[in-house]
Amino acid sequence: VQAAGLLPAVALLEQAARTVTLTPPPWPVNIADYGCSAGHNSLLPISSALDALRQRVGPERAICVAHTDLPGNDFTALFETLTTDADSYLRGDRAAFPSAIGRSFYEQVLPSESVSLGWSSWAIQWLSRVPAPIPDQVQVAYSRDPAAHTAFARQAAEDWQTFLGVRSRELSPGARLVVLTMALHDGEFGYQPLLEAIYAALTSMIKEGFLSVEEVHRMVIPTVARSEAELAAPFANNGRFKGLGIEHLDVFCEEDRIWNQLEASGDTEEFGAQWAAFSRASVGPSLAAALEGGGRGPRAAEFINELEARIATRLAAAPERMLIPLAKLVLARENPPC
Amino acid sequence: VQAAGLLPAVALLEQAARTVTLTPPPWPVNIADYGCSAGHNSLLPISSALDALRQRVGPERAICVAHTDLPGNDFTALFETLTTDADSYLRGDRAAFPSAIGRSFYEQVLPSESVSLGWSSWAIQWLSRVPAPIPDQVQVAYSRDPAAHTAFARQAAEDWQTFLGVRSRELSPGARLVVLTMALHDGEFGYQPLLEAIYAALTSMIKEGFLSVEEVHRMVIPTVARSEAELAAPFANNGRFKGLGIEHLDVFCEEDRIWNQLEASGDTEEFGAQWAAFSRASVGPSLAAALEGGGRGPRAAEFINELEARIATRLAAAPERMLIPLAKLVLARENPPC
Repeated sequence: VQAAGLLPAVALLEQAARTVTLTPPPWPVNIADYGCSAGHNSLLPISSALDALRQRVGPERAICVAHTDLPGNDFTALFETLTTDADSYLRGDRAAFPSAIGRSFYEQVLPSESVSLGWSSWAIQWLSRVPAPIPDQVQVAYSRDPAAHTAFARQAAEDWQTFLGVRSRELSPGARLVVLTMALHDGEFGYQPLLEAIYAALTSMIKEGFLSVEEVHRMVIPTVARSEAELAAPFANNGRFKGLGIEHLDVFCEEDRIWNQLEASGDTEEFGAQWAAFSRASVGPSLAAALEGGGRGPRAAEFINELEARIATRLAAAPERMLIPLAKLVLARENPPC
Repeated sequence: VQAAGLLPAVALLEQAARTVTLTPPPWPVNIADYGCSAGHNSLLPISSALDALRQRVGPERAICVAHTDLPGNDFTALFETLTTDADSYLRGDRAAFPSAIGRSFYEQVLPSESVSLGWSSWAIQWLSRVPAPIPDQVQVAYSRDPAAHTAFARQAAEDWQTFLGVRSRELSPGARLVVLTMALHDGEFGYQPLLEAIYAALTSMIKEGFLSVEEVHRMVIPTVARSEAELAAPFANNGRFKGLGIEHLDVFCEEDRIWNQLEASGDTEEFGAQWAAFSRASVGPSLAAALEGGGRGPRAAEFINELEARIATRLAAAPERMLIPLAKLVLARENPPC
């Protein structure tokens, strides 16, 4: 799902790489990948950016790529991918230098004015913290609780401003930052059948004694989809926010490729299994963290397996096309006044 | 053991930080920590270097710290230490920017001429590969096999030259690199009672059917201690090797603090336990990698526990002071010709 959503944003990153202002030699060109996870979705965008940059600076100039994520991220998987994967951007490029930064991107993690090109995909939808419990769902978008909506909206606005503020410090004058994130499309969060299946699975696990009511009450997916207006809000004053401006902002719906496969194959089990696997990878750890004993406790693995199986069964029984709304943005760091 | 050996080398690093040529602002000052492991032995030296540098460049200038180790290293532990430990150099320094690089330091991992200050402790004794089996020990220093000695000596010389060559490219003119590593002192490798206990423990585990003869034959600790002459060998030609020179080279013996504790307390069990714990952490994974099923296989944990217990018992039964020979070096990168 996430790999499919990348392509339109990668095109924006490539275009930015062709035109962005670069720090002068002999200093390296710095690229930052904010929210890299295990790196599988970083290879294509970073390779594309490197190809475009290499046409400008030649093969010898050092290009540093800083991959950031939280301290608990699997950086070993990232470096194993980078050093062994046939598609790694290290292949055939001896002047590309990857590094990892295990710190939250809600603080400054790179030197001021050091980054020429930034990339962040499927990352800024994650809030810096859980701002409130959600009494009737795990995703605030499908809750009917006004207090939860208010708390999540406030946190989402604050986190977006924080993210923009610290990135503005890190970006060098004339730099570009390309962002791909979950969005609201005509007010729709999307993924409705999936979230209903997740919540129904959790409810059934309470009934069968696998989970307690308290555990499910604690379960929250701390992600938000922002509307175009919410993404643009910090820039209301003259189109500028802390030296950043919006060069491109577009909310679009990505095709549900898993649904397309189902239409071609008629295989409803595969449809359920693929969406369940996506859920497991993307939100399984967040939900498991609410278990008595924690996300690394003895019940976590069984819980995640069981949840995945129940989601798969429910979606296979009543397959529906998912709406996948996304926003892509290009933010430009102002050049200094001449 | 390793933390105790640090102090004399940290003094050299501090002195280098006070005098080393720095890249000009606005660019960051770059420090590299080659072979960081989980970072516990990096906090003290890097903090000391940062303190000395801050006196020269003030609190605002960005100082980047690149911690390198192999891809499989526990970088999560590194970042958890850096972001939560009370002794982390990030405390109170908002312009210090750590990163991790999961690549072998036998290749270039940072841009050319980018590093002002390098540090490497207890790291370059690890060879880039196992050059030969050791038929009668796990540590070549205590083998009587001439072929093993020849193969390890050749690999040690080659790896040292490779390390120096790639570091020379990374260091900026006038930079310094401080190295602490295992060494031969008057031809002695040291740790003799410990290595005899390790090999005796492995042999007893064959007899009791816990290990096969083939497994123990495959077990190798791929570390070497180099003599002062071996460390100096690449510099034989005019004292220079690829733009590097030796500013300081000293082989010394570190006190056995575990023995000192025993003399004070008389607690032989504690003596055995502490040396066994050191062995477990430093060489357990290398030995477990030779198991049928590999170092992550089902028998690995039990093997490492059993090995540690047997080493502890043997050392407690006949405690002896260990010889701990180390070398400390300061390497200087030439300034460009004026």
